[in-house]
Formats: sequence, structure tokens, C-alpha cells
Amino acid sequence: MKKKDKKYIVTPWEVSGDVDYGKIIKEFGVKPLDNNIIARFKKHTGKLHYFLRRNIFFSHMYLDKILDEFEKGNNFYLYTGRAPSGPVHLGHLIPWMFTKWLQDKFKVNLLFQIPDEEKFLFNKETTLEATKYWAKENILDIIAVGFDPKKTKIFLDTEYAGHMYKYACMAAKKMTFSTIKSTFGLKDSHNIGIIFYTAMQSVPAFLPTVMEKKKTGVLIPCAIDQDVHFRLTRDVAESLGFPKPATILCRFLPALSQGGKMSSSIANTTIWTTDGPNAVKGKINKYAFSGGRDTVEEHRKKGGNPDIDVAYQWLTFFEEDDKKLRKIYEEYKSGKLLSGELKQILIDKLNAFLKVHQKNREKAKNQLDKFILRD
Amino acid sequence: MKKKDKKYIVTPWEVSGDVDYGKIIKEFGVKPLDNNIIARFKKHTGKLHYFLRRNIFFSHMYLDKILDEFEKGNNFYLYTGRAPSGPVHLGHLIPWMFTKWLQDKFKVNLLFQIPDEEKFLFNKETTLEATKYWAKENILDIIAVGFDPKKTKIFLDTEYAGHMYKYACMAAKKMTFSTIKSTFGLKDSHNIGIIFYTAMQSVPAFLPTVMEKKKTGVLIPCAIDQDVHFRLTRDVAESLGFPKPATILCRFLPALSQGGKMSSSIANTTIWTTDGPNAVKGKINKYAFSGGRDTVEEHRKKGGNPDIDVAYQWLTFFEEDDKKLRKIYEEYKSGKLLSGELKQILIDKLNAFLKVHQKNREKAKNQLDKFILRD
Repeated sequence: MKKKDKKYIVTPWEVSGDVDYGKIIKEFGVKPLDNNIIARFKKHTGKLHYFLRRNIFFSHMYLDKILDEFEKGNNFYLYTGRAPSGPVHLGHLIPWMFTKWLQDKFKVNLLFQIPDEEKFLFNKETTLEATKYWAKENILDIIAVGFDPKKTKIFLDTEYAGHMYKYACMAAKKMTFSTIKSTFGLKDSHNIGIIFYTAMQSVPAFLPTVMEKKKTGVLIPCAIDQDVHFRLTRDVAESLGFPKPATILCRFLPALSQGGKMSSSIANTTIWTTDGPNAVKGKINKYAFSGGRDTVEEHRKKGGNPDIDVAYQWLTFFEEDDKKLRKIYEEYKSGKLLSGELKQILIDKLNAFLKVHQKNREKAKNQLDKFILRD
Repeated sequence: MKKKDKKYIVTPWEVSGDVDYGKIIKEFGVKPLDNNIIARFKKHTGKLHYFLRRNIFFSHMYLDKILDEFEKGNNFYLYTGRAPSGPVHLGHLIPWMFTKWLQDKFKVNLLFQIPDEEKFLFNKETTLEATKYWAKENILDIIAVGFDPKKTKIFLDTEYAGHMYKYACMAAKKMTFSTIKSTFGLKDSHNIGIIFYTAMQSVPAFLPTVMEKKKTGVLIPCAIDQDVHFRLTRDVAESLGFPKPATILCRFLPALSQGGKMSSSIANTTIWTTDGPNAVKGKINKYAFSGGRDTVEEHRKKGGNPDIDVAYQWLTFFEEDDKKLRKIYEEYKSGKLLSGELKQILIDKLNAFLKVHQKNREKAKNQLDKFILRD
């Protein structure tokens, strides 16, 4: 992935720089969510989710096949995941919120994988005790998003491996280290757990067919960096008797102050789902990169630039109302709305959002058994 | 392992040529079972098993540590295994017979691993259905050896992975592909399942400590070709909080007609545990390499060579009575015993042995539930 003439990096383990999503579509060999497929999608969902209206979910693979089968009466499964290495931040919620919407609209089952071994294998310092702790914490956030407990199963790889390892071996037998090396840029000095891991990430794409005892399609809503795993899965799926997994892929919630995506590794510029109102206010005011002018006078005269303003960009992810968003865009651009005022709109929006999320997160503590697939 | 000046190859996947066990001890960095350790061993077992008296089990690693702990009142576990790719032959039974003797003498628990994914991953044509079928068949042979059902747990990797994968990841995190490459001679073109597999073979060395909730040693009786896996396990065990696994290592039952070990891949020169008396007779008479002379007259005059005679070598593995064996040796060497007569002694011995084994194997069909650890 790392080419010298490129200004961004997107791999499952690193996202940085100013990501060019148009280029990425070509580079990753995925398809844009064009008018045709969106129109077809809309027939089943009614009004589109604002993530689709705003091209936050912007590309896909094999979504057309999922719709082909759905229109013939064959249900698909949703599959997404979360590697538990720390607390959940707002960026993590984006694909999950969309997954919930898909579940509601299509009334389908969801497998939610918690690959607790992944970060353990990738990060020297991370322990399995830590990933287990964060798995429990993260599951509260997942449940808080509002998935249907009757249609959602969450599982940890280390707990559910009895149902997974066999299928991981089936996939692994068809994946050489040469392929893994060139796909992920792994080296001989990487550990053999990392090398094997992508086979485990393939498995939830096969499980629906195993569970339903008939070929069952899988649609994976996730950020674009994860598609590479499923590219490998697609290469082996059919020869193992499973349909190729489809993906529907989103952009990253931008970092508050930098290019790339909001990252857990820069803690004080990250907004966690457990942050209180003052923490949110402080981080946005201090770190959110502004598209405003240097002085109030200049801003009133020339207007701000919402296209590079992170507070505005974030509102595209959290303000559902298109009219309100449009108004904010225009008022900021005209200079009527100041940077501080724009930030306050975002702060209020996020705090309202987090208040609901945190209430649901508390309730989730009594709902774990309804969701977790232990064996 | 493959060096041009060597006349044999010993890896977990290939044994051929005229194995020099003296050289192998040095090459593999294992220790001979010398008089000191044998004397210490004998204090606990009484009369030594004939495999020890005859140096069939000829080397070890850390057996002294196992005895140190045992003498302090700390029990160890036995651990051995069988990769189920086809029927069991007489060569497979050698370490199991010795394991049973160890279980009887030390009254300890045994974990019997069936890595049903191993051959699946290694052999292009092998399916998981086939390995599962052979696992069931092979378990009958294992039970027929006479292990204590109260102290023996048999498990398939694909069924028991829920209890194994986590520990395999712990080991895998400390094993780089560079190490695996140089240890096993694997290449980038090998599949990622094979590359990961040795981590799964490490796990039963850790499980006793997990099961007993205190550090518990493991003694692994196996053929010398398997020690390489446990060399890797030993490199990582202590840093994970587990004792280094000990091994007690045996020679291979020689092939009937060739160097190396009896191999399933040359079916008609292999004696299976399910062979009837005529099959055994036919194979021994036709294929067992003879150390006799070209004519009866010459044999009577100059005597045979028991040291290269496969029938005699096999009797060292199956005739428990040292006196009888000595007599056969001398009579063959003097020319009193002809090759055909020597072969007949072996045929009678094996058929008596197999009659008992086959009866036990039938009975085993009703004992599976007592032995198999499913979850």
C-alpha cells in the first residue's frame, strides 16, 4: 500500500494522511455506490439513511448479489466486528449505526465478531486479559447502538473458536504466506498468529451458510480499510461452498486535528463514548481543525470553509437533518456563522447523542446474556 | 535437515534413509537416556519396560525435571497424539503402548491430541471429512491400547479448539515465521494454516497447568521426529507461565523392506492393526528384509545377521521376554534358526498381539464417550 507518490496510507492497521476515496475505489478494486444500486436499495428501505445520502458509505462489493438474492426471497446475514484494544470512540460507532439501520430495514440476522486475539497478536504490549476486559466494555457500546437481541449474536474469537477454527483452517489451506505477505505487507519477522489471523476474520462470512444449512449471503458494513480481509475471503469462499461475502464500505470519521481517521492512539484528541459534556466541549474547542478565518472581521467578510472544517465534517456524520446541515453549511460559508458557534452546534449535537448512548450503555449491562454467543 | 552428506531425513513429515540415532541425539540437541536417569526412573516404576531395556526409547529432554517434581509430590500429565490421515499401523502403537505403561506406573492423567487439521492442512487431497472419519477409527485403536478411562482425555483439535485457540495465540505471538521457516523448512508458498499449526501442537503442553490451576509438568512420549515441535514450545513456555514440556523419545519401527520408518504411504508393506492372520503372514514372508544367507546350506554354516534382519528387529519391539529374544538372536546368528523360521516366530507373535488388540478395538466402540473430551 505504501507508495512514495501517495499522501495517505490505508491498511487494516494504519490509516493516515489525506485519504483520496476516489483513488481508493480504483486501488482496492471496489465499486462506487452509484445511482443504479442506490435506487434499487431504496426500493427495500424507503428513505435512505443519511450516511448513504451523504456518500459516507460510498462503495461496495457484491451488494448487487445480496439484493438479487433478497429479491428472490433469500435472506442475508449482516456481519461486522470490533477488535477490542481500548475504549470505543465516535468513529467506531459509524459502521455500527449503519448496521443497525440495515438490520431494521431488512429484518436480518447480525453476527458481530470480537476478534480479541487480533490486537493481542499485533501489539507487543497488549495482553489477552486486556483484550478480554475491553471486549466486555466494547460490547456495552455495541448493544447500546440498539441492535435487535433476537437477531444479533456477538462472540469473542477466543471463546467461540470451537465453532470457528475448522472453517478458518479450510480458508487457511487456500491462502499462502506469499499472498498474505503481498496483501498485508507482512514479513518473515511477523508472528505466526498474525499470519493466520485473516483466516479467522473470514469465518463469520461462512457461518450463516453453516447455521442456516443452505447457502446464505453475508453483507459486511465496515470502513474501507477492512475490505482487504474480505478480498482474500472472496478468493476462497466459492471453492469452499460459501457465497462471496459482500461489503458496504464507509469513509473514516476524520481526526479532530489531523488527516486520516480519528485514532485511539492519540487519546486527548479522541472523543470516547464515555466522555462527559465538558470533555467533549474541551476537545472540540481545543483540537477541532477550523476552516474559519483568522479574525472575526475577516470571517464575517470572506466566510469560512466548511469543506476543510472538521466540526462541519463531523456534523455530516451526526446531524441527520439535511435541511439543518445545509443551513449550517451556507451560514458558515457566508460568514454569518462563526467558528466558535459552529463548534458549539457540534458540541451540543454530540452531547445529546452521547447522553442517549450512555443511558443505553448502562442498560446494556443487564442485556449481555441476550447477545453473547458463548458456545 | 536435508544435508547432502547425510543418508537420512527426519522431520515431522518425512522420515527416510538409514537413521543414525546417535547422530540425531546431537543434531536435535536432545539427551540420551543414560544409566543415571534410567536408575532414577526405575525407583518409581520397578522393572523397566522392555522398550527402555532395549533402548527403543533412547533419548529425552527434561525427564529429570519431571522426576524432580514427581519426587516432591507434584504429578505430571502425559501428552501424546495422532494425526488422523489413515488407518493405524503397528509403528504407531509403539509410543502409545509405552504411554500406557507410564500411565499405569505413575498413575497420571493423559491428554491425547487428535490434530485432525494437521494432515488436512499438509496434504492437498485430504479433506476434513476424511480426517474426521479416520479420527474416529484411530480413537478405537487408541482406546484398545488400554488407557485408564478415568485418567485419559482424547480430543480433536477442530472440536476442542474453543479451549485451545487462546493458548495457541499466546504461543504463536512468540513464534515468528522466520523461526518456523528455519525449524521446519517451510516456504512462502506454504499455506498459513500449516504455518500456524505448530502453535496448536504446543497447546496440550499448557493445558494441564490450566486444568489444575497450578504449574503442572507434561511428559510427551513420542517418536523422535516430533521433538522439533516441542523444541519450539519449550522456547516460549516459561515466559507464558507454563513449565517446559519434557519429551521421552523413541526410534521408529523399521520399514519391512526399506530404511526409515514403516510408512502408511507404502500400503502393501505396512501392517495395519486391522490386518487378519493371513495378511500379516503374507506381508512378513514377502517383504520383511532378511539377514539370512542365500542358501540353507550357507545359512547353517555361516549363520544369519539379526542386526540387519527386519523380522528380528521387529521382535525387539514385540517380544517382551528378554530370554526368548536372546535365544532367537543366538540361534539365528549360529545358523540354527532359518530365515523362514524366524519370520514364522514374528508372524505368530504379531498375530497373537493383533488378536488381543482387535478384540479390544471392538470393545472400544462402546467406550468412546468415556474417553472423548468434546467441550
